[in-house]
Amino acid sequence: MTGDLLIRSVRPWPGDPAEPVVDVLCRDGLVAATGVGLEVPDGVPAVDGKGGVLLPSFTDAHAHLDSTRLGLPFRPHSAGTGLAELIDNDRRNWRSAEQGVAERATHTLGRTIAGGATHVRSHAQVDVDSGLAKLEGVLAAREAHADRAHVEVVAFPQCGILRERGTAELLDAALRAGADVVGGLDPAGYDRDPVRHLDVVFELAERHQCGVDVHLHDVGSLGAFQVELVCERVAALDMRGRVTISHAFALSTVDSERQRELVDLLAEHDVAVTTVSPGAREPLPLRQLRWAGVRLGLGQDGIRDYWSPYGNGDMLDRAWMLAHRNGFRQDALVEMCVDIATRGGAAVLGRTLGLTEGAPADLVVVPGDTVTAAVMDRAPRTLVVHAGRVVAAEGELV
Amino acid sequence: MTGDLLIRSVRPWPGDPAEPVVDVLCRDGLVAATGVGLEVPDGVPAVDGKGGVLLPSFTDAHAHLDSTRLGLPFRPHSAGTGLAELIDNDRRNWRSAEQGVAERATHTLGRTIAGGATHVRSHAQVDVDSGLAKLEGVLAAREAHADRAHVEVVAFPQCGILRERGTAELLDAALRAGADVVGGLDPAGYDRDPVRHLDVVFELAERHQCGVDVHLHDVGSLGAFQVELVCERVAALDMRGRVTISHAFALSTVDSERQRELVDLLAEHDVAVTTVSPGAREPLPLRQLRWAGVRLGLGQDGIRDYWSPYGNGDMLDRAWMLAHRNGFRQDALVEMCVDIATRGGAAVLGRTLGLTEGAPADLVVVPGDTVTAAVMDRAPRTLVVHAGRVVAAEGELV
Ligand SMILES: [Zn+2]
Ligand SMILES: [Zn+2]
Repeated sequence: MTGDLLIRSVRPWPGDPAEPVVDVLCRDGLVAATGVGLEVPDGVPAVDGKGGVLLPSFTDAHAHLDSTRLGLPFRPHSAGTGLAELIDNDRRNWRSAEQGVAERATHTLGRTIAGGATHVRSHAQVDVDSGLAKLEGVLAAREAHADRAHVEVVAFPQCGILRERGTAELLDAALRAGADVVGGLDPAGYDRDPVRHLDVVFELAERHQCGVDVHLHDVGSLGAFQVELVCERVAALDMRGRVTISHAFALSTVDSERQRELVDLLAEHDVAVTTVSPGAREPLPLRQLRWAGVRLGLGQDGIRDYWSPYGNGDMLDRAWMLAHRNGFRQDALVEMCVDIATRGGAAVLGRTLGLTEGAPADLVVVPGDTVTAAVMDRAPRTLVVHAGRVVAAEGELV
Repeated sequence: MTGDLLIRSVRPWPGDPAEPVVDVLCRDGLVAATGVGLEVPDGVPAVDGKGGVLLPSFTDAHAHLDSTRLGLPFRPHSAGTGLAELIDNDRRNWRSAEQGVAERATHTLGRTIAGGATHVRSHAQVDVDSGLAKLEGVLAAREAHADRAHVEVVAFPQCGILRERGTAELLDAALRAGADVVGGLDPAGYDRDPVRHLDVVFELAERHQCGVDVHLHDVGSLGAFQVELVCERVAALDMRGRVTISHAFALSTVDSERQRELVDLLAEHDVAVTTVSPGAREPLPLRQLRWAGVRLGLGQDGIRDYWSPYGNGDMLDRAWMLAHRNGFRQDALVEMCVDIATRGGAAVLGRTLGLTEGAPADLVVVPGDTVTAAVMDRAPRTLVVHAGRVVAAEGELV
């Protein structure tokens, strides 16, 4: 469902803050014209951008909507450390939430849209404990917000594929049930057999003609080896442009020569990367990835769940986190983080966003003198537009 | 100026979130009683805490109020990299601000108080370019908010002491003009003569019987050497409890054995440490410092100035940054960050805060299910109390 809209008084990015504000006309869900004092065509609704900065809308390229407890009573973090313990802790607790997965995912997806993200890739855990229940909850949330955002769902083997019999079959069922992408998780470090794990994942991708998104926390040479294994399969199956490695801690835990090799390998195979800008991990080589042409997106990861108390649905806050963690002070570098959080993530999802004529009218208006000021202020979004229709205003869904 | 006050319906920290809310009576600027449904004594004003979490108020233990541009039109970051270039850039630009130092510092100090900090240690740059102009501006801000917060001012040789003739004399004049503490800056790495630099600083401290707060960005063994030089002077001049090392990057850039030695040295000489939780630096060994009994505070550093676009006056946001940067998920660790941001910083300033009877009624009420939830939400503060009087409510000064 696409719409027509005139957005008054915004300052498109990039642009000179000293220039007069402009109006942006959207037609049939696309940006149609930009100019000073545009006439409102008959029957086209007009909204006031209040002089805010106009950006392409945000993309949350890596979320876990199935586990969120945002908006529910806070529960103290109950997990010990390490991936296995985090997995067990979630299993012990997820069924006791005050609301089901669908209701929780719908709430948090709504908050994410209100924060300006109209493209979201959410993982949904598929395992022998929960079966497809979590996937179905995320699919229901997608349906509830179908007019407000484009949501991709990853069938995500959060508990490994090889460790529990029946997981591969569940992933297959998930892809038949509506998941768009098949996931993977630390093929070596957690699932203990990188070749078999990745063969299962890519065989499912071939069968369903779908994309792949592999969580790869493994660091150093073991992580790097798995980046190579992924790229080998991309080449063999001609899957350039359809595969993502999430986290990719390997890139920041090898020496700079090896890092350059890996970045080039990713670029050559058009394998995308997503980061959630974790606080205590070495940041990814953002500039090197972008210089090489690697599609690079930003995500929230878990959003106040049994895994972590962080995350709030706000991708502008996450862009701030990315900039701060990297020590960026120059405006160009802060704006690079905004680009990663908007166009970069959209490219991970195979979408092209922008502000030029003909681009999808997926837009966000943020108060602030400049883009960098808007990132620092993190004020509620003035407007969020999806496919030419206003979906949120002043920080709340409409 | 102290006051009487009854704060209704709060949940003191630490405490069980499931317990009924209590009221807190303040008398003559001190916590006098805590209980369920306290009577309001005649003539005592009552305010509603709305069920929020009650904490000791925040302490910003390391701010630069003299350089802030918060609330003014945003200016793109104009400095190159490196301390010398940052110093030169500030010199080129500070006089062209739309408002003078006093007005800017007063605004940002007000925002900091509204965010819940009622104790602040601000550095004020003293150098041959600006003379005492920046110090005077910060002293004026302190005066403007004298009833709302306790503010300590550091005469801070931001451009070194030995590099420009006359700086030591200006520091002396600053201490006569109202500065409370004498500062220092990278005695080796920037000022090129650690012994002479520290001798000047400690000689001024002796002459004025004041405390010392040295910025120490120098890393590794050079930084560690200067930690030793500081402690040697503390011992020689019997200045235990009156000296702070800010940043102290040395602590996180030496091996763990050397780190332990330095932490023990700081504890033995009761030298305090402050951090601003910078994004791209290795975090300080928070737990080791606290286990050893080192007083450890948190600060904002610069607040949207020519040095950096970050900082917003919000010490709860800064506590969140400290927790996130350290990868803390356990509630006890997040609460440790709150303790550093409240009692910890107060101890750096030689003050004892708390919620027990007889403690200073410097308090903040924050919405949130628990302390950790309050940190994650970072909602506007319900109430800020200084010396038994409400100084801010719902995020605004009263
Ligand atoms: Zn994930
Ligand atoms: Zn400083």
